[in-house]
Amino acid sequence: MSTPILQSLIADRWVGTTASRALHSAINGRTVAQTHAESIDFGESLAYARGQALPALLKLTFQQRAAQLKALAAYLMEHKEGLYAISAHTGGTRADNWIDIEGGIGTLFAYASMGRRELPSSNIVHEGPAVALGREGQFLGSHVLVPKRGVAVHINAFNFPMWGMLEKFAPSFLAGMPCIVKPATATSYVAEACVRLIQQSGLLPAGALQLVIGGSGDLLDRLLETDVVTFTGSADTAAMLRVNKNLIARSIPFNAEADSLNCAILAPDVEPGDPEFELFVKEVAREMSAKAGQKCTAIRRAIVPARHIDALASQLRERLAKIKVGDPAVEGVRMGALASKEQQADVAARLAALSAGNEIVFGARDGFAPVGEGVEQGAFFAPTLLLCRDAFVNEAVHELEAFGPVSTLMPYEDFDQALALAAKGRGSLVGSVVTKTPSLAAEAVMHAGAFHGRILVLDRDAAKESTGHGSPMPALKHGGPGRAGGGEELGGIRAVKHYLQRCAVQGSPTMLSAITGEYQRGGKVQEDAIHPFRKHFEEIQIGDSLLTHRRTVSEADIVNFGGISGDYFYMHFDEIAAKDTQFGQRIAHGYFVLSAAAGLFVSPAPGPVLANYGLDTLRFVNPVAIGDTIQARLTCKRRIDRGNRPDQPPQGVVAWDVQVMNQRGELVASYDILTLVAKKAAA
Amino acid sequence: MSTPILQSLIADRWVGTTASRALHSAINGRTVAQTHAESIDFGESLAYARGQALPALLKLTFQQRAAQLKALAAYLMEHKEGLYAISAHTGGTRADNWIDIEGGIGTLFAYASMGRRELPSSNIVHEGPAVALGREGQFLGSHVLVPKRGVAVHINAFNFPMWGMLEKFAPSFLAGMPCIVKPATATSYVAEACVRLIQQSGLLPAGALQLVIGGSGDLLDRLLETDVVTFTGSADTAAMLRVNKNLIARSIPFNAEADSLNCAILAPDVEPGDPEFELFVKEVAREMSAKAGQKCTAIRRAIVPARHIDALASQLRERLAKIKVGDPAVEGVRMGALASKEQQADVAARLAALSAGNEIVFGARDGFAPVGEGVEQGAFFAPTLLLCRDAFVNEAVHELEAFGPVSTLMPYEDFDQALALAAKGRGSLVGSVVTKTPSLAAEAVMHAGAFHGRILVLDRDAAKESTGHGSPMPALKHGGPGRAGGGEELGGIRAVKHYLQRCAVQGSPTMLSAITGEYQRGGKVQEDAIHPFRKHFEEIQIGDSLLTHRRTVSEADIVNFGGISGDYFYMHFDEIAAKDTQFGQRIAHGYFVLSAAAGLFVSPAPGPVLANYGLDTLRFVNPVAIGDTIQARLTCKRRIDRGNRPDQPPQGVVAWDVQVMNQRGELVASYDILTLVAKKAAA
Repeated sequence: MSTPILQSLIADRWVGTTASRALHSAINGRTVAQTHAESIDFGESLAYARGQALPALLKLTFQQRAAQLKALAAYLMEHKEGLYAISAHTGGTRADNWIDIEGGIGTLFAYASMGRRELPSSNIVHEGPAVALGREGQFLGSHVLVPKRGVAVHINAFNFPMWGMLEKFAPSFLAGMPCIVKPATATSYVAEACVRLIQQSGLLPAGALQLVIGGSGDLLDRLLETDVVTFTGSADTAAMLRVNKNLIARSIPFNAEADSLNCAILAPDVEPGDPEFELFVKEVAREMSAKAGQKCTAIRRAIVPARHIDALASQLRERLAKIKVGDPAVEGVRMGALASKEQQADVAARLAALSAGNEIVFGARDGFAPVGEGVEQGAFFAPTLLLCRDAFVNEAVHELEAFGPVSTLMPYEDFDQALALAAKGRGSLVGSVVTKTPSLAAEAVMHAGAFHGRILVLDRDAAKESTGHGSPMPALKHGGPGRAGGGEELGGIRAVKHYLQRCAVQGSPTMLSAITGEYQRGGKVQEDAIHPFRKHFEEIQIGDSLLTHRRTVSEADIVNFGGISGDYFYMHFDEIAAKDTQFGQRIAHGYFVLSAAAGLFVSPAPGPVLANYGLDTLRFVNPVAIGDTIQARLTCKRRIDRGNRPDQPPQGVVAWDVQVMNQRGELVASYDILTLVAKKAAA
Repeated sequence: MSTPILQSLIADRWVGTTASRALHSAINGRTVAQTHAESIDFGESLAYARGQALPALLKLTFQQRAAQLKALAAYLMEHKEGLYAISAHTGGTRADNWIDIEGGIGTLFAYASMGRRELPSSNIVHEGPAVALGREGQFLGSHVLVPKRGVAVHINAFNFPMWGMLEKFAPSFLAGMPCIVKPATATSYVAEACVRLIQQSGLLPAGALQLVIGGSGDLLDRLLETDVVTFTGSADTAAMLRVNKNLIARSIPFNAEADSLNCAILAPDVEPGDPEFELFVKEVAREMSAKAGQKCTAIRRAIVPARHIDALASQLRERLAKIKVGDPAVEGVRMGALASKEQQADVAARLAALSAGNEIVFGARDGFAPVGEGVEQGAFFAPTLLLCRDAFVNEAVHELEAFGPVSTLMPYEDFDQALALAAKGRGSLVGSVVTKTPSLAAEAVMHAGAFHGRILVLDRDAAKESTGHGSPMPALKHGGPGRAGGGEELGGIRAVKHYLQRCAVQGSPTMLSAITGEYQRGGKVQEDAIHPFRKHFEEIQIGDSLLTHRRTVSEADIVNFGGISGDYFYMHFDEIAAKDTQFGQRIAHGYFVLSAAAGLFVSPAPGPVLANYGLDTLRFVNPVAIGDTIQARLTCKRRIDRGNRPDQPPQGVVAWDVQVMNQRGELVASYDILTLVAKKAAA
């Protein structure tokens, strides 16, 4: 059987038929695939992205792109076994490849879901609230996020070829940017397999994702101001790419995520025997062995109380000794190989440098013998735990990273020292603090937060559901300061915003209503004969408004409302005490005003409004006294069409701006109500 | 009288006694001041910032620093006339210097006020909400922003020596970062005068603001991962500084704000005679003459319908002819000088290049003769309006900037062309669109938003309160993509966040409550004999909680509540129609549940709770049917001490988490209530 030649997907065509570099199995050294020799025309690739893919993406709304992401995730999940098969060559165990494959697909699902829940059914995000820039309220300012109308270039690392691609693709795609992905060559066969599935699915607009096998050529030199580059890999490569002349000249955003010397701290309150003590040991051992330690988030520095150093070393030694290393196809193997022979040599060299002046607690001498056929040609490496007795003196442990199953124990005397050691990483992706004491956790975050992109606090309560030190989560920011590259990925909708352009907008309320797609007070409203609550979702326009009839609030209202609610607060019922308040008299319950307003604008018969499911930013602006007359204005503020779902009648979300005023025209209460409104058209 | 020697403020000492470079008045060329010859020890400066100023700043909370900012703003306002006197040498009119001086002080006031309103009384910002990362809710994730524990270096432009310094200082100081400011040398005498006042005020911790007169030496080479650099000036200098090896190696954030070829578009819907037509003419003329056009936001490109080009050229000519140029001390002068002879020569050279192939609509030949004594030695320049007949061909108008009173008219045929011309600026700080039509404004923002940091939409309604094309506002983002440097300044609390470090946090609800300073559901609560509403502000702890008695909801409740509110919605009152809903029966009003919950946790007698002024994120999670029994849990979620004010009794803000449950323990309603709670201690 001839070795397959990997192809690039450029301008919706698979490119490459001549073999170039052979890529080898990490398990046994056999050739898995070959890269192609043909060079890529990045001018063509970019022209296709800008001319074909971008307009197609922007014809869709955030909601529609979220739906496509969800369908794509489901499609990939159906085809995951093929991906596991090809991923076996990377040297990972099934659990390792689960992170890459199902972690990647899970990230698509997560962004589909966040997009659906949090983004509008348009292509503009209003990052409000708008603020008045003058006293009359006829000049407002706010912010919107709009499509950048450019291309996202993603340059990825070898360790997670699929997750690394999808976690960046998901938010870029949601934002409406075509992507050009360049996976690290060593494991590009996994990325290629995934992109082939994506193309076969036919679910995305052509050109939404292009794939580059091999070098990135002059791609960065051809980018424009509207484009974005992200990079995951070593700090050195990040520094080199970041100063590309074209990127600098055009201020093109460059987001870097570099591996770092992440730490885990065992806090001074934890004693041997506490569940937290064992949690710490487990977490360190797991981070050393998972993906054979080839995670940019792996624990490289285990910072522990000096008095527990022997107990910890012995427990870790015991646990590491149990880890069976070899071909993951062999029963019982829990740790696989490094990604390539090059990595194996690199880790060996770095470990040699790291070992100088430090003790080896566990390593190759402890009976390392990987199991499986042909493993001597593979890229296996022995889990190795070092002990650095004085990490304030032997600073190499904070500088040198062996990107494999290698970690260093370092003792501290007090918690300040522990935090000082953590900071010596000069910026990390993640740090863990294992403690029983909330105040210690708070202190750790307050100090170590400046040096970490993420901090995991582990205790017995969190342990049952903990996703672990090393796992970036779609909802949480991934990326750290300093050595970790200074970038931000993931973190929920934040990630989508990185691929949009923030623009401040100023103008009259009517103009800002049209721009933001959200009614702004003071803007023009439409009032017609039909009550807004009697319109179907499709018929409702932003600015549709109702000024209700009035109601005079009497002492009887207050009395009755107290009786019904059980709320006999002195401000409503104690004439004597109420005299001493800032209002100088009894006032109506705030919730009475809210309830009476609902009574003013309700449309009682069954109609399109299916439910009032919530209320936001209610403020009681002025008191309502006995004898005051109130009136409400209800105005359609925002509408979101999330498409139709098989499990519910076709409906959309409509938010209404409510202003309750008194007889002097003063605002007494202000809020938004959230409703579900039926669509006219069936699904 | 000998010329004063400007001094640097380093490590709380004024440095420099030997004269170096002479700085000249822009009006008459006389020497205003001299820089000092002594070189600065930036090692000492940074050590002082890190060792002295930083700990002092972090002893204060956001609220306390906001109060200091406010006091500082008031102090500077009292001493503003001295600043106007020294600023006269810069060549600006009183109106120009108002932007610099009172605009700068106003920005301090604005940040003091935003800090007070929006930031907590601690040093950590919870950027929530927390999300559950597991099904049981015992493992949550969220984000916090913590002090970076570094130094902010601000490198400023010559045109607004005071505003430029204060608009960056305000958010950095609020965030708790000591600042080192390097003003542009040409007008550094204004910055020095301002910093002398700040130091004299004694209001800030020593070292909170250091001043560098002259070059920045090896300052950037000495910065650490925790530091931040901001730059305002030319795109070329930004590109040079951005690739500083140390900044790159340590991923030190570099925020650039570069002048750009900003545009104003007269939309195709506006006709001569419309108020918008005149607004456009006024805005273009004002942006040419204000600060003699030396604003990085000034309109360089006026994009107008081809059919109106003659009318516009003639109206602009007329308006420009009326602008009296000269020494602003002379009565009637409306435009002053450029900042220096160097600028004068530079603008002349660039104008010469720009003029090639374009027509001069108005310029020096139209009787330019600045008034005032000695003005021939000053740096005056004639307002100059060019006309570029085909800006798709003669592209220099989108590339070359004459940083003075110079602008170019360029015609378009349709709105798409206008937007295409706007985009040719390749990234601008601001663009204006003058239109009567909301849909045109929305279209403009959707397309031009990708190329602009800010878009002003001007119409007759907005005009009365408009702050103008050229004015950055504290609440709105300043900074644009591409050529404009890709940075973000101002924009409300966003700017403060640029000087904090975002850190994702994960852990149990109890841990996250301690870390974020905000109660997280599922975390441990304290329940004691005292009702939480009977505690004073100082006594209330996060997690103080009350589980109320219960109440069974009856049909009578629904009937009575309908009677009181007037809300006879069919879901509550129409047994027939209610059968067809998803609930299959009549349910209680949501607002009844809310009101009854208040009745459950109210403490009726006068006490420390002064007011319930609002409610946030109310969600009706499950229906309450007749016969259901509800119960509420009230838990202290957040407390903010904004200090005491002379005009109100000492009090603090307390937000309470409310969960209303039914007899099955299911959540039926969920919300936060906001209260003002009296302090025990008098002011």
